[in-house]
Parts: sequence; C-alpha cells; structure tokens
Amino acid sequence: MSVKYFDHIASNPMLPEVFDAMVPYFKEQYGNPMSMYDLGMNAKQAIDTAREQVAKLINAKPSEIIFTSSGAESNNFAIKGMALARQGDGKHLIISKAEHHSVMNTARSLEKQGFVVTYVPVDNNGMVDPDAVKKSITKETTVISIIHASSEVGTIEPIKEIAAIAKEHKIGFHTDAVATVGNIPVDVKDLGVDALSLSAHQFYGPKGAAAMYLKTGQRILPLIYGGIQEGGRRAGTENVPAIVGMGKAAELAAEDLPARMAHVRQLRDRLTEGILKIEKVHPTGHPQQRLPGLASFVVEYIEGEGMLLLLLAKGIYAASGSACTSKALKASPVLVSMGVPTSMAHGSIVFSLGIGNTTEAVDCCVEEFPQIVKRLRDMSPFAKEGWGALGAEEGGSKEGA
Amino acid sequence: MSVKYFDHIASNPMLPEVFDAMVPYFKEQYGNPMSMYDLGMNAKQAIDTAREQVAKLINAKPSEIIFTSSGAESNNFAIKGMALARQGDGKHLIISKAEHHSVMNTARSLEKQGFVVTYVPVDNNGMVDPDAVKKSITKETTVISIIHASSEVGTIEPIKEIAAIAKEHKIGFHTDAVATVGNIPVDVKDLGVDALSLSAHQFYGPKGAAAMYLKTGQRILPLIYGGIQEGGRRAGTENVPAIVGMGKAAELAAEDLPARMAHVRQLRDRLTEGILKIEKVHPTGHPQQRLPGLASFVVEYIEGEGMLLLLLAKGIYAASGSACTSKALKASPVLVSMGVPTSMAHGSIVFSLGIGNTTEAVDCCVEEFPQIVKRLRDMSPFAKEGWGALGAEEGGSKEGA
Repeated sequence: MSVKYFDHIASNPMLPEVFDAMVPYFKEQYGNPMSMYDLGMNAKQAIDTAREQVAKLINAKPSEIIFTSSGAESNNFAIKGMALARQGDGKHLIISKAEHHSVMNTARSLEKQGFVVTYVPVDNNGMVDPDAVKKSITKETTVISIIHASSEVGTIEPIKEIAAIAKEHKIGFHTDAVATVGNIPVDVKDLGVDALSLSAHQFYGPKGAAAMYLKTGQRILPLIYGGIQEGGRRAGTENVPAIVGMGKAAELAAEDLPARMAHVRQLRDRLTEGILKIEKVHPTGHPQQRLPGLASFVVEYIEGEGMLLLLLAKGIYAASGSACTSKALKASPVLVSMGVPTSMAHGSIVFSLGIGNTTEAVDCCVEEFPQIVKRLRDMSPFAKEGWGALGAEEGGSKEGA
Repeated sequence: MSVKYFDHIASNPMLPEVFDAMVPYFKEQYGNPMSMYDLGMNAKQAIDTAREQVAKLINAKPSEIIFTSSGAESNNFAIKGMALARQGDGKHLIISKAEHHSVMNTARSLEKQGFVVTYVPVDNNGMVDPDAVKKSITKETTVISIIHASSEVGTIEPIKEIAAIAKEHKIGFHTDAVATVGNIPVDVKDLGVDALSLSAHQFYGPKGAAAMYLKTGQRILPLIYGGIQEGGRRAGTENVPAIVGMGKAAELAAEDLPARMAHVRQLRDRLTEGILKIEKVHPTGHPQQRLPGLASFVVEYIEGEGMLLLLLAKGIYAASGSACTSKALKASPVLVSMGVPTSMAHGSIVFSLGIGNTTEAVDCCVEEFPQIVKRLRDMSPFAKEGWGALGAEEGGSKEGA
C-alpha cells in the first residue's frame, strides 16, 4: 500500500483479510449459488453471511440489502426503479445540483422519458437547504435523491432532515452514500431513508461489489431483469467472491470505524493546516460537516492537472474533481454549483486519506506542495496578471471558494 | 476441480492462470482506471488488454466490446438499450419462446412501457425457424433477439440466417451467446449480428465479468448512466481484476477451443449413449446442431430434483432446467415451448461437461444413473400407472420429447 496514496475516494487498496476471504470462492467454491447441491449452497450461504455483515454496518435487515456491481448501478437502480414503480402517482423528482454523475445522468435520462426533475441548489459550502427541498415538492413528486456526502468537497448533507420531509409527504427518499458508508457511521433507521447506495471499494473491499439498501415494503422495479437472484430484484449470476469480500470489508469497517475516523481526521487536519499556509488557496466544502478523511481545495491561477503531475513526480497521489470524470477535463460541476467560478474550479485539488497513510507521508506532502504551486504559478499568466488575463466575464470573482 | 462436476453451464471452475492474472489487480494495482496517475493508468491498460483479448475471441474490434457485470446485464442492456434508442422508428420486438429469463423478462418489462413483443415458437428440437421470424416482422419492428444456444437443451439456433433477415429489414439484431462464446467458435462478423452477450464464467473466467459486443455505429442507450467509463456506454468503477480475468480466460479459450470441443464432445457422446439405454428417457434439443458439451434429457415419471439429490449422494453434480430458475421449481419454460408436456418437463436432467472431466467420471455417471432412475421410479405412482395418474389433461402425451 503506497504510503503517499491520498486518493482513497477514487479507490482503496483492499485489505489482506478481504482478499483471503475471497480466495476460496475463486478456487474450490465455484458453484452457482442458484444450484441445489453443496457447491451452490455453500456459495449461497457465503452470500447470506455477507448480506448480514453489510446489513449490520448500516443497521438494516439482511433482506433489505440487494447486491449490485457498483455504486453507479445502485444509484441508477434506486432512482429509476423507484420512479418507475411510482409513476402512477406522479412524474416529478428532486435531486441536488451537487450529485454524482450516476445520479445526475439517471435523472436526465428520466427527463427524456417524460419525468420532470427539480435540481435544488447548494450553498457556498456545498450544503443543500432542507427548506429548498420542501419548497420544491409538488403533488407529482414521487422520489427525492440527495447525496450523503460529496466525494469532491466532502460536505455531509442534512439527510435526516430531508428524509423526514420526504416521509411526511409520502415521497420515496434515496441517498447516494457511496462516499460515507464505511467511512463515517451510517444508520439507515436513524437517517430514515427508503433507499441508500453503498460501494465496497470505498471501504477497503473489492471493486465490482456494491449494494443498495431498500427499506422493507418500498416499491421498486428492477434495473436488470431475469432470474430470481436477490429476491427477484436484481438478476444475474452473483459475483460470489466480490460479495464475500464486501461482507468481510463491512465487518472490518464496523469494528474499526472509530479508530479509522480518528486516524484520518488528524491526518486531514494536519494536511489542511499545512496547505492553507499557501497564499490564495481556499478550502472547499463545509468546514465542519465533512468527511473526516477528505481535504479539498481550489488553488488560484493554476490547474488541477499540473498539480497532479508534479505531485506524482514526488510519489504523491491525489485527485482533481471526481474520479469518474477526471479524464473529461471539465471544470467540476459540483464546484460550479457551489458558486466557484469556472476558472478557479479548474484549480481543484482533493486529498483523501486512508488507514495506511502516515504522519510522515502527510508531512512530505505539506513540504512538497507549496513548491509545486509556486512552480506552476511561475509558469501561469494568471498568477502575474490575475484572472483578468482570462477576459472580462470571469475576471477576479472569488466568491464561493 | 471436482471430476464429477457436470454442471459447467451453471458455472465453471476458474482456471489457475486466470486467478494468477487477477491477483496483482487486487493487491498492488488498486488504482481507479479513471485516475491520471500510474496506478490508474496501469489498471486502464489492463482493461484495454482484456478488451483486445475478448474482442479477438469473437472477431470483434476492441472498441466494440463493452464490459458489464453479468450475461443478464448484457442482455438487458442490449435489448432495452437498442429498443429505446430506436423507439422513434417503432416499438415492436421479436424474440423466441426459448430465451433465457434475462431476455424474456426484459421483453416483458418493455411490454409494460408500450412495446409490442412477438414470441416466435421453436420446434420440437428447440429450433427457431428463420421464416417464422421473417413473417413476424412489421414496419414497427426495431429489434430482434434470438438466443445463440440454449443452456437447457443445447440447440444452436440459425443465427446467421436470422441476422441476415434482420439486416435486410434494417432491424437491430442481438443474440444471447452466453452459452456459446468460449465453447464453440463465435465470429460476430460471420454471424452478422449487431449486438451479442457473453459471460466469462462460462469459459473458466471469473463471475462478475461479462461483456456486450456492440457493432460500430449501432445506436444504444445506457442501462447504467453516470461517468464516462466504457466510452460513456456503461458507468461505474470498472471491476478491474474480474475484467483482467475475463481477458485471460478469453485468450486461453481462443487457443484451446478445438481441443476443448473435442474433449467434451466425446465425453458427451459417451454419456448420452449410456443414458439413452434407460427406458423412457428422451434426449432434448437438436441431435446435431447442439453445444458439444451438453447432454440433456427428460426422464419419464420422475422429477429433476430427486435425480439431482441422488446423483449428489454419489458425488455427481448435474442440473435440471436453468440454473437461474432451478430454485423456482417450475417446469422449464424452454421445454414447454418445445412441446414437452409439463409433467414430463419436470423430469429434466442436464449434464454439461467441462475440460476437467474424465472418461472415468462419465463412466461412473453412466453406471450410477440407471439405478437412481430405477429407485425413483419405484417410488413414483406414475411409473406404475403411467401419466394417467395425473388426470386427463396431461395424460400420456409424449410428443416432443
């Protein structure tokens, strides 16, 4: 595990215990869980155990866990499945402007099918106002989906309040909790949500394993039709080893959560303190209501890509914007929705800490980063002339950063 | 690998080389393929290599391969994605009555969205008549999907002829080739299909890895919306190790195919010859146009479940009907569509041979099976009184078996 890997929000190194738990299901236990013989039943039982482990992590019942292949699949499934199941009651959805692409683009695909979507704004800290959600509700509203925490700015949304509003109006409520489950305590009963997405590789489990929590009694239509796997709600031969790994990772996360949070929080605070000593660097997201392991900034006058490359030359791994769109090289829509000017949003840099990171690694980053910023600014016309070099429309504005 | 495992169509033991290829992507190479640094780029490169390996197996271009999480997902994606992309041209689909549940139930879900579906029949051998498909075409037809080979009866459909008819009418053509790719030669260019589903665990690759071939230029809508993975056609963090394993398994399948086919064919013929010596046991599916490794029968007067349990007591693994519905304990819709009476369809037994099976294992099965049938028939009222014990409506009819 690279000690200067600060991109845990993009993907996590898997824990050795997780790998060890998976191996038998690649080797001896290769049966199809739907088969009636021991090889199949062993696989089925392993899935049931994983279902209990995942359920326990979020205080759900095992029957409320549906395994999927990714957080994106869970988000598509939850929003589309609930919206289609409830379309007799109306065709209006509410999401925020700071959702992950898998929520945003699912909502847009539903717009093409005749649904109407309200995109509630976020404030300069990336926070959704529950009142704004309430005011957006119409008689046609059937589903609300608000992200639990942003992987780009770390802001934790007031899900409990919004879920209560949804419940009061008998609206289905989903939250994309991919960035939170396994990283902070998530209790579906306490939050009062109807559906919730989570992903194993966010908490040191394998890629290809994710789940959706669906509260007992909630109506949904499948995204993947076919056999009777997952209670007829998600067809396809189960990815047994990955599910087993997700279960093990969930069990370990549940046990270790307080220690993990304390570890990454102190590293994040140390990193943040160091980085904010640089001039014209602004923290993004909420100062308190944020993921403990996530430090996010915009650095004026330079671009994320340059920072990432120079950091990498020092063996430091970080991110700029969301992993799912980093190759699109667009200004982060999440930052733009928070009022960060497009020009400045290009200077996004995100460090996400993990359990394998050390104080020494963070100190190395704090030492190297100012020099990297200086080097890039020395090459940037904006650093000398200010944002005016861009032309009038985006000039000097710094609000929201 | 259990030498008396005759259920390779439900799932396959993974080859050791496949596991070895996957391990580094669980351990050191944990980066998100969308990230710009080496850890991400290594993962991306591994996916690209796998894409080439899979493309080569079916004579496609790498850019025509979209990785998914299961054959069921590929089937849902292909049919729904093509039907929705083409709905401006019409809302009529054609599938056969012998499709896998993931095709059948996708078609049914589209019926609920206002599409009209024609279910073309199959003959007593499970064969679709291309003329019947042709006659079902209307001006509204946009998608035809016919299974390449049935996992229950082994019949290989005349895909090339049907694809040519579809092309002539500018209709999108998809085939569910989950049971064929890696087991018989599959050449998408020769077949002339527009889309094709395949799954890694059918050819000694991992579960959780599958793909869809989509011919260059074919219109499709995503099933899973979100980031720009898989060319924007299938969002979600890639299941890197599983994809790598699928690539390796595809490479090995391409190299070994003739030897594998010869091996399972001679075992299947030996098994079939032995089993057909038992009275009132009928082969199902086409006698020649069939999967080389699949031997399928209906055994009169007794039920699949009993046979499976007694076989298992002898260490022999087999199946009855499709793995995806074996727990539903319904008579196989595929057999019923072939004209097998429901009562007799319950007596379905399917042996699917694999590369790890031996002559000794097959001989053991041939020796044990007659005794198992005898024991079950001794307990069955039908064996003494004939099907008349069931009542009039299903009595003695044996056509189609």
